[in-house]
Amino acid sequence: MVKRTSFEKAECPIARSLDVIGDGWSLLIIRDALAGKRRFSEFQKSLGTAKNILAARLRMLVAQGIFELKAAADGSAHQEYVLTDKGKDLFPVMVALRQWADVHLFTPDEICTHLVDRRNGQPLRRLELRADDGRLLQRQDIAIVRSD
Amino acid sequence: MVKRTSFEKAECPIARSLDVIGDGWSLLIIRDALAGKRRFSEFQKSLGTAKNILAARLRMLVAQGIFELKAAADGSAHQEYVLTDKGKDLFPVMVALRQWADVHLFTPDEICTHLVDRRNGQPLRRLELRADDGRLLQRQDIAIVRSD
Repeated sequence: MVKRTSFEKAECPIARSLDVIGDGWSLLIIRDALAGKRRFSEFQKSLGTAKNILAARLRMLVAQGIFELKAAADGSAHQEYVLTDKGKDLFPVMVALRQWADVHLFTPDEICTHLVDRRNGQPLRRLELRADDGRLLQRQDIAIVRSD
Repeated sequence: MVKRTSFEKAECPIARSLDVIGDGWSLLIIRDALAGKRRFSEFQKSLGTAKNILAARLRMLVAQGIFELKAAADGSAHQEYVLTDKGKDLFPVMVALRQWADVHLFTPDEICTHLVDRRNGQPLRRLELRADDGRLLQRQDIAIVRSD
């Protein structure tokens, strides 16, 4: 793929976020971390990616403040990649991607992983767009404005 | 970038969705379409991308059922790229990316675009994770399960 223009300074937050996590691998690494993975070998096993690509991605994600490197919790010589608050806050992005794919990219007979409420095993409610006062909004109720 | 393994048949909906829209450009094209753009020249002007890259992306997005090609509404010879329901349903993904970037990728003095409620110009409420019965959930209240 041709390297995309950098959107690091874009006024649009979507463009800016894709500059950090928009390469596909990054979102899958963060997905694995949100599911509890912490070690290089765990990410590699899950993603089946070449070591050099994974190492470069993880370095970038540490530099961006998505992960921090910590000594392994078991006292071994391993280092662990631990999500920062900035990284953990990507969870709603993952939920939105999942819910879209559940509906549009799977047929009913396919095996699919789902997010459920630990308390009762029921699937989550679909994400809803709400106004500040709680009213449910549709896409056409929403405008984009530029603050300056 | 090295071409990533295809996740077209992955059991994880996040992986599968990134197979369709995870290249950065695709999400920015869909962002522009959600904001009302429909013509090749509009996307090109907005994204500043090379014609051949944009054409390839749009072809892929039509093949994936995100856009459909329609005759221009003004009766001219132009064709327009119109989002399908599958494409429009990516709006919550955009909202989630925006809200994350608003918090983590902008300093308070930077110009940023925002989504507001057309009725009163107020910003949207942040996306919330809720159980089927409406209880607010935190990340740790949620488990991943595999349905088969």
